[in-house]
Amino acid sequence: MSALPTSQPFDPSEPVFRVHLGGKVGVHATSELRDAADLSLLYTPGVAQVSLAIAADPTLAAVYTSRRNTVAVVSDGTAVLGLGDIGPLAAMPVMEGKAVLFKHFADVDAVPVCMETGSVDEIVDAVARIAPTYGGINLEDISAPRCFEIERRLQDRLDIPVFHDDQHGTAIVALAALLNAARVVDKELADLTVVVSGAGAAGVAVSRILVSAGIGDVVVVDSRGVLGPDREDLVAHKRELREVTNRRGVTGTIGDALSGADVLIGVSGGTVAERDLMRMAPRAIIFALANPDPEVHPIVAARFAEVVATGRSDFPNQINNVLAFPGIFRGALDSGARRVTEEMKLAAAHAIAGLVDAPTAERIVPSVFDERVAPAVADAVSARVLGGVL
Amino acid sequence: MSALPTSQPFDPSEPVFRVHLGGKVGVHATSELRDAADLSLLYTPGVAQVSLAIAADPTLAAVYTSRRNTVAVVSDGTAVLGLGDIGPLAAMPVMEGKAVLFKHFADVDAVPVCMETGSVDEIVDAVARIAPTYGGINLEDISAPRCFEIERRLQDRLDIPVFHDDQHGTAIVALAALLNAARVVDKELADLTVVVSGAGAAGVAVSRILVSAGIGDVVVVDSRGVLGPDREDLVAHKRELREVTNRRGVTGTIGDALSGADVLIGVSGGTVAERDLMRMAPRAIIFALANPDPEVHPIVAARFAEVVATGRSDFPNQINNVLAFPGIFRGALDSGARRVTEEMKLAAAHAIAGLVDAPTAERIVPSVFDERVAPAVADAVSARVLGGVL
Repeated sequence: MSALPTSQPFDPSEPVFRVHLGGKVGVHATSELRDAADLSLLYTPGVAQVSLAIAADPTLAAVYTSRRNTVAVVSDGTAVLGLGDIGPLAAMPVMEGKAVLFKHFADVDAVPVCMETGSVDEIVDAVARIAPTYGGINLEDISAPRCFEIERRLQDRLDIPVFHDDQHGTAIVALAALLNAARVVDKELADLTVVVSGAGAAGVAVSRILVSAGIGDVVVVDSRGVLGPDREDLVAHKRELREVTNRRGVTGTIGDALSGADVLIGVSGGTVAERDLMRMAPRAIIFALANPDPEVHPIVAARFAEVVATGRSDFPNQINNVLAFPGIFRGALDSGARRVTEEMKLAAAHAIAGLVDAPTAERIVPSVFDERVAPAVADAVSARVLGGVL
Repeated sequence: MSALPTSQPFDPSEPVFRVHLGGKVGVHATSELRDAADLSLLYTPGVAQVSLAIAADPTLAAVYTSRRNTVAVVSDGTAVLGLGDIGPLAAMPVMEGKAVLFKHFADVDAVPVCMETGSVDEIVDAVARIAPTYGGINLEDISAPRCFEIERRLQDRLDIPVFHDDQHGTAIVALAALLNAARVVDKELADLTVVVSGAGAAGVAVSRILVSAGIGDVVVVDSRGVLGPDREDLVAHKRELREVTNRRGVTGTIGDALSGADVLIGVSGGTVAERDLMRMAPRAIIFALANPDPEVHPIVAARFAEVVATGRSDFPNQINNVLAFPGIFRGALDSGARRVTEEMKLAAAHAIAGLVDAPTAERIVPSVFDERVAPAVADAVSARVLGGVL
């Protein structure tokens, strides 16, 4: 485990500990067990009839088991929030919290599955082995670059959606926000130059969805500078990312990348200097998404950009994954999707953006408590499945 | 998969299918999510404080996560009820039913984990990897002899209880029933000769708990005859079982074993002939536990035995695991037990038997709906842990 950030001392009387007492999720039966007749339907001998029907026709599992509405929230605790590798037990409260959000926003039954970490092979094998239990797999807080291969290999093996939310949830909501921010500054997507600072899980997914969405040019920067043609030091996922980005062949520092750029999206957890920000184009857009400390403080960002967004709830324009993942899985489960395609992600981003009637600099995304969001995302995702994409 | 028994044709209008529609278990949040303040406690940023506290002191996971009350009901679907190897999807209704019983009888949050089958190594690795999520593991419907090694190796690896209910649940309730049946026929445990027909998961566990409980002699019979000193064909778990049973060195057929025997416990699914039953001692006891077709029909058994029990709810004296497993896990979770010891199983059996005030031939075990059972079992189990057995 990496060193942990310093924190307040443990005080069980604090509200956050009181609300976690005994855990945040429970299991309940969906029908009553009153007498021997109920028992013989819910369990033996009646249950055998249902098991035999499913054995004869496995598609009936989608009708007569909890699988149809259950998503596993899977983590090995290696990249939890901004806390790093804190292990599966310490990851539990985060995965339970995610399960609470799944239920609240989209009536999805999500169960935490926190596992001892291991090789990519071991994680893939364990998740694939237990997959018959679930209608979908939400991967969470698994360290990069392992997360890329784990997601890809699991999706290749399974016929249910596998979705790494740190990547795609962030990417979908960032794109939704950018669609509306571009309207506010009156620029066309195809004309935008976007600099993505960070080439981890979120950086890769944000960059890829922006390319898919038709953004003019996307330039990715990691801690050593621009992912440009001169870089000889790149690991596989960064080489692959370079292939689909940086069409002008920019090289150098983040300052070089920001020269004339319209948008900065920070997903690195580092900081960006003011001397670099001042090189951005007029009517710029800055999304500084690191939590709890954005790459650029929103007060500072406002001096260089017309539209500013963060991951924080205490400033306007919170880019929060909860706008995406509940509706994504709701739509995927309801439509029997076997994977979450790029088209479904783009459709989800447009659905989220479309819920803001007249975007302003202070309002480019809906509130996380806007009850229209999850159904709109679910409908957009379902339409892509039912429309024949799969 | 083995051939499936013939069954009624699938008719979705039947009550058993209607009660299974959409599955039998759901997930709920244990506290309300009303506004941004709740969100910041249940999820980010507040949850980070709880995660950090657990990372610093992992024992806090037993206080602040759902782990403390959650049991995984794990099956690979290779030996489901009497149906055989029907696979993980078809096993789901059974595991969900088990979860319903766990909740109803002991307020345990149980979640199905149905997995693709594989080698013992693969099953053990997968379960051990996801074990941090749970406070206990209930193994279910895993074929013998794999189930013995899977349970043993998992319990060696994990510091939470691992309990194969097909073995130990059956054994505990059978012993409870026998304690009271012996009182009815006025025989001492130490004087009893018991014949166990079947050397699979249940047969092994029943035989072992009877030996632990101080039964005079236990003779085990498999499809080829008595596990006696002459048998050269025994696999490992049967050789080990022979070592602790059959102290008189009986050989031959089930008829030879039943000659003068006080008790027959059938856990084989086969049948026992009347010419063999008539060799039993006066005031005999017959438990014919195969479901739905007992080894001896209870009407027939009553001609040869004073006390008769089956696994069926439509005859007196139903030997049903639900008398044991909810209370076993309730007690283990509440007391922080790291395993379910032989002493805990014996204590559970005595607790169940003790709830029948004046046993009669028609009433040797409590009703499955007797609300005193699970708390009594839990208390008996807890006392063994808190009393320092672990």
